[in-house]
Amino acid sequence: MGKRSSLTSDEAGDFGLTAPIWAGTPAEAATGDLAFLRALLDAEVALAGITSTDISDIAAAADELLPHAVRDLARRAAPAGGNPVIPLVKALTEAVAARNPAAAESVHLGATSQDIMDTAFMLVASRTRTGLLADLTRAASALEHLAAEHAHTPMAARTLTQQALPTTFGLKAAGWRDLVLDAHDRLASVVLPAQLGGAAGTLAAFGAELPPESVLALPDAFAAELGLAPPRLPWHTLRTPVAELGTALAVTVGSLGKLAADVLVLTRTEIGELAEGSGGGSSALPHKSNPVRATLIAAAARTAPALAAVLLGSLAAEDERPAGAWHAEWLPLRDLLRLAGGAAHHAAVLAEGLRVNPGRMRDNLAFTRGLVTAEHVAAGLAPILGRRQARDLVTTASRKAAAAGIPLRVTLDEELGPLTGHPSPELLDELCDPAAYLGSAPALTLRALARRPAGG
Amino acid sequence: MGKRSSLTSDEAGDFGLTAPIWAGTPAEAATGDLAFLRALLDAEVALAGITSTDISDIAAAADELLPHAVRDLARRAAPAGGNPVIPLVKALTEAVAARNPAAAESVHLGATSQDIMDTAFMLVASRTRTGLLADLTRAASALEHLAAEHAHTPMAARTLTQQALPTTFGLKAAGWRDLVLDAHDRLASVVLPAQLGGAAGTLAAFGAELPPESVLALPDAFAAELGLAPPRLPWHTLRTPVAELGTALAVTVGSLGKLAADVLVLTRTEIGELAEGSGGGSSALPHKSNPVRATLIAAAARTAPALAAVLLGSLAAEDERPAGAWHAEWLPLRDLLRLAGGAAHHAAVLAEGLRVNPGRMRDNLAFTRGLVTAEHVAAGLAPILGRRQARDLVTTASRKAAAAGIPLRVTLDEELGPLTGHPSPELLDELCDPAAYLGSAPALTLRALARRPAGG
Amino acid sequence: MGKRSSLTSDEAGDFGLTAPIWAGTPAEAATGDLAFLRALLDAEVALAGITSTDISDIAAAADELLPHAVRDLARRAAPAGGNPVIPLVKALTEAVAARNPAAAESVHLGATSQDIMDTAFMLVASRTRTGLLADLTRAASALEHLAAEHAHTPMAARTLTQQALPTTFGLKAAGWRDLVLDAHDRLASVVLPAQLGGAAGTLAAFGAELPPESVLALPDAFAAELGLAPPRLPWHTLRTPVAELGTALAVTVGSLGKLAADVLVLTRTEIGELAEGSGGGSSALPHKSNPVRATLIAAAARTAPALAAVLLGSLAAEDERPAGAWHAEWLPLRDLLRLAGGAAHHAAVLAEGLRVNPGRMRDNLAFTRGLVTAEHVAAGLAPILGRRQARDLVTTASRKAAAAGIPLRVTLDEELGPLTGHPSPELLDELCDPAAYLGSAPALTLRALARRPAGG
Amino acid sequence: MGKRSSLTSDEAGDFGLTAPIWAGTPAEAATGDLAFLRALLDAEVALAGITSTDISDIAAAADELLPHAVRDLARRAAPAGGNPVIPLVKALTEAVAARNPAAAESVHLGATSQDIMDTAFMLVASRTRTGLLADLTRAASALEHLAAEHAHTPMAARTLTQQALPTTFGLKAAGWRDLVLDAHDRLASVVLPAQLGGAAGTLAAFGAELPPESVLALPDAFAAELGLAPPRLPWHTLRTPVAELGTALAVTVGSLGKLAADVLVLTRTEIGELAEGSGGGSSALPHKSNPVRATLIAAAARTAPALAAVLLGSLAAEDERPAGAWHAEWLPLRDLLRLAGGAAHHAAVLAEGLRVNPGRMRDNLAFTRGLVTAEHVAAGLAPILGRRQARDLVTTASRKAAAAGIPLRVTLDEELGPLTGHPSPELLDELCDPAAYLGSAPALTLRALARRPAGG
Repeated sequence: MGKRSSLTSDEAGDFGLTAPIWAGTPAEAATGDLAFLRALLDAEVALAGITSTDISDIAAAADELLPHAVRDLARRAAPAGGNPVIPLVKALTEAVAARNPAAAESVHLGATSQDIMDTAFMLVASRTRTGLLADLTRAASALEHLAAEHAHTPMAARTLTQQALPTTFGLKAAGWRDLVLDAHDRLASVVLPAQLGGAAGTLAAFGAELPPESVLALPDAFAAELGLAPPRLPWHTLRTPVAELGTALAVTVGSLGKLAADVLVLTRTEIGELAEGSGGGSSALPHKSNPVRATLIAAAARTAPALAAVLLGSLAAEDERPAGAWHAEWLPLRDLLRLAGGAAHHAAVLAEGLRVNPGRMRDNLAFTRGLVTAEHVAAGLAPILGRRQARDLVTTASRKAAAAGIPLRVTLDEELGPLTGHPSPELLDELCDPAAYLGSAPALTLRALARRPAGG
Repeated sequence: MGKRSSLTSDEAGDFGLTAPIWAGTPAEAATGDLAFLRALLDAEVALAGITSTDISDIAAAADELLPHAVRDLARRAAPAGGNPVIPLVKALTEAVAARNPAAAESVHLGATSQDIMDTAFMLVASRTRTGLLADLTRAASALEHLAAEHAHTPMAARTLTQQALPTTFGLKAAGWRDLVLDAHDRLASVVLPAQLGGAAGTLAAFGAELPPESVLALPDAFAAELGLAPPRLPWHTLRTPVAELGTALAVTVGSLGKLAADVLVLTRTEIGELAEGSGGGSSALPHKSNPVRATLIAAAARTAPALAAVLLGSLAAEDERPAGAWHAEWLPLRDLLRLAGGAAHHAAVLAEGLRVNPGRMRDNLAFTRGLVTAEHVAAGLAPILGRRQARDLVTTASRKAAAAGIPLRVTLDEELGPLTGHPSPELLDELCDPAAYLGSAPALTLRALARRPAGG
Repeated sequence: MGKRSSLTSDEAGDFGLTAPIWAGTPAEAATGDLAFLRALLDAEVALAGITSTDISDIAAAADELLPHAVRDLARRAAPAGGNPVIPLVKALTEAVAARNPAAAESVHLGATSQDIMDTAFMLVASRTRTGLLADLTRAASALEHLAAEHAHTPMAARTLTQQALPTTFGLKAAGWRDLVLDAHDRLASVVLPAQLGGAAGTLAAFGAELPPESVLALPDAFAAELGLAPPRLPWHTLRTPVAELGTALAVTVGSLGKLAADVLVLTRTEIGELAEGSGGGSSALPHKSNPVRATLIAAAARTAPALAAVLLGSLAAEDERPAGAWHAEWLPLRDLLRLAGGAAHHAAVLAEGLRVNPGRMRDNLAFTRGLVTAEHVAAGLAPILGRRQARDLVTTASRKAAAAGIPLRVTLDEELGPLTGHPSPELLDELCDPAAYLGSAPALTLRALARRPAGG
Repeated sequence: MGKRSSLTSDEAGDFGLTAPIWAGTPAEAATGDLAFLRALLDAEVALAGITSTDISDIAAAADELLPHAVRDLARRAAPAGGNPVIPLVKALTEAVAARNPAAAESVHLGATSQDIMDTAFMLVASRTRTGLLADLTRAASALEHLAAEHAHTPMAARTLTQQALPTTFGLKAAGWRDLVLDAHDRLASVVLPAQLGGAAGTLAAFGAELPPESVLALPDAFAAELGLAPPRLPWHTLRTPVAELGTALAVTVGSLGKLAADVLVLTRTEIGELAEGSGGGSSALPHKSNPVRATLIAAAARTAPALAAVLLGSLAAEDERPAGAWHAEWLPLRDLLRLAGGAAHHAAVLAEGLRVNPGRMRDNLAFTRGLVTAEHVAAGLAPILGRRQARDLVTTASRKAAAAGIPLRVTLDEELGPLTGHPSPELLDELCDPAAYLGSAPALTLRALARRPAGG
């Protein structure tokens, strides 16, 4: 064993060994501890920038601190006061002081820990969102192509696990895309404000050196410096931004979860209408081709709602800084960013590589030997037999066909018998053809594809 | 015992005996089983209205069915197919047939159970929302008055349970109002579409009698008939509307939960800065005046996130109708409407009746004998002593004051000693006066109160 | 319209119109408002019984009050103090006083509202549990028969949606049963204590008339009177009983959810290995046979975890009675009892009526044309070819078979070629026979079936 | 900037920068990626151990692999099949082959990925639990001392935020301890089984080389090798162990959350009855002493229920390996171990260092000027005035005292007036003394402290 053999678990760091949904995706780098520390330091530097004239030493000290400090600051957070900003401010102040003692006075001036933490979270969210929206756009684009290509590809619509009627794969893909666009537009519209209020949210500490109207303008300047939205009020305990971000992320994961749920059904061995571009192998079964990306997305869709619930619960935050509700946001908010980012990434790859098997779709539509056309037959016979009688006859014929395992076409002939006004064999053939009963599926698909992403 | 003595539990019905949050509020009547049955029937009548010319017999039969059918339909739902629409259609068809056999043919024509259930849920949501938004507006208005009246009323800002700095009650009330407006505007913007897609979401069954372009127009006509939004696509398994509604309701409850959380802190016996207008009594302690409404709202705020999580989880709905994800929406969606409606109602009453005690606020600000002004003192001494030395001196004086239980003003004098350039006693008095360190609280309050509800 | 035409929604009561999972099951009657009121009154009568000698007038007044009071008490709960006990005590005291003024003095003596509410919840839970455990036992018994009958019935094991290897339906049913027994035993072991502590949990109000040792014995006597467990301490804010009950109920629903999840897969049109005894119809598609009970159980399994989470959250209850955490228990605890009771009932019916189709199981096992036996073949060839070479050869043959859609048996012959020591055709046939590769499935089934319910 | 300046976020690893609840606690090292990799390798080595005679080369290769592989395996999990075992087996096999090609044949023999993952999770859980139970025992012991020391220390019992009656701090601490012991005993009783079933849970792959009875014995041998419990059945989709572990962890965190919730109330500036041994500082307010550990525990108690809900949701796992439900367990299970481990550690430190201020407790009890003794007074006057009249008189006197801000003792005298049989001033003084109305608090405390931890 080599030189690192004495590495202990807490020195090793976590790299997502049990989190394949985000390990290696853009969301990993965008949300890791180092990215978070960078955001904390960016917030401190921007803060100095709106109150001081020369921040070059502070910026340089931050750059210097960045790559070394994560583990140390993580350890010092709990004893220091429950968040990493307190030890960070101490470390940064010392680093600045070593360069320029006067500049050290400007570090963290007027701010409270929560100003820096909340701002850093919004920065991390904003940076993660960029890639996330791009992946959603990629996924929507791939789904658009699928929907257009398969606008008239018949497949079975399934309700409560049973084949119901024919639909088209195009309409299904258009529906997936519509959900992805809903998620995209919702997430893009979430306002991510900077946080600046000082210890009690009154900006009081800035008033020592600035006239009142200048103080009120500080949060906007701070936000502008960082590319974040200006806050209406200090929102230390007005947590709409976090609740909105969290629910938008959970909606994103859930929407991709619909895509995944369908892929998982349609890739089943016995259904086989879809396959992931590169299915995962199995450690024991070399022939299997598992829908790995859909599985990981489905797992994320089971987790994200619970994390969003924690954030919704933190809306009820007492006082000017709550003892628990705020701290409880950190884990779920970061994990939601990771799950959504990872799910969007895998969904884009999945959608781009999805293999569609129209032959299996057609075969499966024939599986019920015509029963999926029962509604069509009943409607087609209604002008001849009357609506109720047509329905009753089709019901009887359907049951006989199902029981005997023979085509509906056959039992229909038996039930119809030698009626006067018997429908023609050609009409019956058409009524029993699944591909002739797609309803408005193609038209709905066309209409849905006309939608564009907001701002896109 | 009287004639009803043999009443059994399942005959008795539920009236919210364990749900004081909504029992007796407008949300109860708007979301009860009878209201839901009314919405189901409204949907069936409207459906008939867009495909038939004369629906008077259907409407009359629905009116007749309404008051008697709830319990019976509830029982028949599970065996009939898992939802109440199947037995309802049967009962309605029979009732119509008794009046007009031909009209019975038009009942439920072309639709699927989910069309009616989803539409009924959106109708119930829409009708409940009306009262809910009105109660939010009432609450916001009451909070606006409180904020304006107390724009300069000093009170302690508390962070992590500890008094931190002075703030104003006006800013606190303005923050509550801002959250209420956030919730109002969010909820008001949720799109509540009608649902119409037929058995597979392809509108196929309507195609037997109508040309394609007329079929595509049906969902919009259906929606217009009911005052709901037109659907972009049949959304049987594209559940953005439910997820958006559910999260908006949970955000509403959570936002009111912030108000409740603060009221619960500030009505504590030892703090006493607020009291509910009519506190609840205790069965054992006649002198107590419990913050009952805040308690009920706080309880709702603990429950709503979990219910929203179930709805977010149902986004991942397989196929054209999922076997479970759809059915799982019903309980949480109705409960969220009830919790949000009840919480908004109690919040409005609470805000309108809230009793504010500025004297206790002032007394509590004096509790730390000046420690809450430490930041102000440090800032005020900085021009004289230098920033770092001022902060160190105040820290020392604060610790001594806290340890000895004497005023900061006294320990400051000790620490400052016979310095040249000693700050004047008048300056020290002012620096140690909490009411002189409100920062931008009044200005922030003013700015926040300029906001109006969207569409208001 | 008849005489009830002016019935309003809030007069009508709820009967589970949107809750087919429990409407009409034993859990409905056991958990309804009337059952809850009965439990509240039982608690008050039992309380009087341990402190007074003659409680006949109190018991009679309670009987009289019971059938009429639900709606009225529900309405009075919020304004009266946030729970229904306060108005109930008032109503009961008045009813007793009308019979016997002296006896009225004994009503609710020494107790607090929470003593009565918590005790009533435990009574309702205890009464609901009896039927619930019986339904779990019924389900386990039906599953035992299925497992024994199908101990050697081959079917495909599916992992990540793909057929993997053969297993038996017996092992699957034995696994379902094991989960049901886990849930049964866990739920049966949950301790349901009475609650008695008085206003502050110190039993102080009982001390005026009783010596200390008698006071300490009161909670046990109260519990014995009601058939509940004696409490170790007043547990007003020590909520282990509620958390344990809630999680046991959620585990029950989740365990039944595994049964439902499998039934939903195996009843898919294209798989068809199972069918519910009486599948639900569809309002639009007469031929469909939906897995209704499995769907309702699956829906419950999506909801129960969120409700349990609320109860787990209420463990963190401040003070001697929390302002929110306690009230937040009522909705989820009752709903969990209903969901678990309803799910157990439907699961028993489902298990007893489940139709198994061994022919479809066999056909599906043949679907991959031998690929599900790849592991077996590799193991069988290892002694001849060496382990690694055998696995490589089978991998190659499997890929070719999958790509060409031909039997593995054929590609194996091709790959093996004219080897010296070529395995015999008979051996290859056996290795490629799914039914010959059931591993320990029958033995594991046998072992699992030896387990008996705890206390059964 | 130094040599590491080009470190990117995904190279840096996570160290809990935003997770002060567990960063630096024993749970960090016990649950980190390296600890998890160690457990995976332990499982592979133990597996080889039950089927092979010489595993020295496999064990050596595992040791060699351990410190270097985390990041690489994490990246390869998703593309490889959705879990890290597949690339791990590949890497381990290569490492063994480099030492001993024959031994490489024995790696992962007969197992499936889930066997290794589940076993590793149980190992990590088991190893984390050891420290966790020790910290719970430490906390219980410290609380026992507090309870014993303060068995007769009067303090206010508070219900719905209001002072209600006197209780003792001893009873409160005894209640905390009882919850900690409940959590300890529950967690200690959770069965943590090894997992071994092979690709389909039938142990089929082991049958090639072993007689049936030996195959059935393998899982037990595997479990014994690792110090885990023997599994009744392969539990790939029978997830009772995970649900039980998850809920026991959430109960643990919630139970500690009760302690934290009380500490947060009682350390409020205006209450001040408790203080954490070493309160956290504030970045802006040097005089503050924040209840940091209670805050972090409270935050954990808001998060844990949601994570447990995900695990409960995963009980409904379809097939022999579900596509999502299993993968969804990994994040919440590890986080629950971390939250519970961190919370237990901080709770132990908190309990050991808790500073109790009996003087403030006494002062606060006097805050209502006798109102907290109203129940006592009413009971004491009942023998003289009759129960109802006594209560009415006390109610009137309490209201007057509250309104005028004068002692109840004074208004009682006024209300009682010159009655014949007026109670003596001495009796009234005693009735109005909070310390004279502790009820059974000391006796209950004594009884509770007699409890010992199970197995302790």
